[in-house]
Amino acid sequence: MSDNWLDEVKWTEDGLAPAIAQDAASGRVLMCAWMNREALQRTQQSGEAYYWSRSRRKLWHKGEESGHVQKVRSIRLDCDADVILLAIEQAGGIACHTGRTSCFYRELVAGVWVTQDPVLKDPREIYQ
Amino acid sequence: MSDNWLDEVKWTEDGLAPAIAQDAASGRVLMCAWMNREALQRTQQSGEAYYWSRSRRKLWHKGEESGHVQKVRSIRLDCDADVILLAIEQAGGIACHTGRTSCFYRELVAGVWVTQDPVLKDPREIYQ
Repeated sequence: MSDNWLDEVKWTEDGLAPAIAQDAASGRVLMCAWMNREALQRTQQSGEAYYWSRSRRKLWHKGEESGHVQKVRSIRLDCDADVILLAIEQAGGIACHTGRTSCFYRELVAGVWVTQDPVLKDPREIYQ
Repeated sequence: MSDNWLDEVKWTEDGLAPAIAQDAASGRVLMCAWMNREALQRTQQSGEAYYWSRSRRKLWHKGEESGHVQKVRSIRLDCDADVILLAIEQAGGIACHTGRTSCFYRELVAGVWVTQDPVLKDPREIYQ
């Protein structure tokens, strides 16, 4: 299979693109991380989400430590070809390193970021 | 109301953060653009989505030309405080400048980005 599809993504100067992971069943937006070319290629090849960790400067197989892997059901690209959208099945129902379903657990309410979603599993149990 | 909540966002060196707009009713991810501090503040104050256009280098009231404004139902922040998620009502049911519901209208199928969603309105009619 040709890699032309990878060339069609408009990577930033740093070779990255934001990647949004959405729960394929609930529609909930679970997280937004970064991919480089290799992350996207591995995601496509393996059927599990890979990202580029900017803080650790390394390829990151989501769930490699926590077991919370993401099975990829579809990969979409936006009109500007610079943002990726994954529809995924989230192992364990936990995408966030805080032990919550989604990383977007805080909502702006009357000028304050209020935590709206519960911790489903203690991070100390997730990352041992 | 204090602006502390704006300070809690971890803006990039360029003063930006990705902002995802999700349809509050359907759950469909419609677009991903950038906000700066002023865009987020105006979004909160007005109840309609504002973004920062990197190409035009100006604040952008979504729908200012097309009429396809976005009424904001909730504003969320992720665990790293560097990505914003809006739940919105999309006027006209069209978020994309190509005249489609969502900017994520292309899906990777057998190594090719395939357009999956129809044009609902000709862009020449949208932007006159």
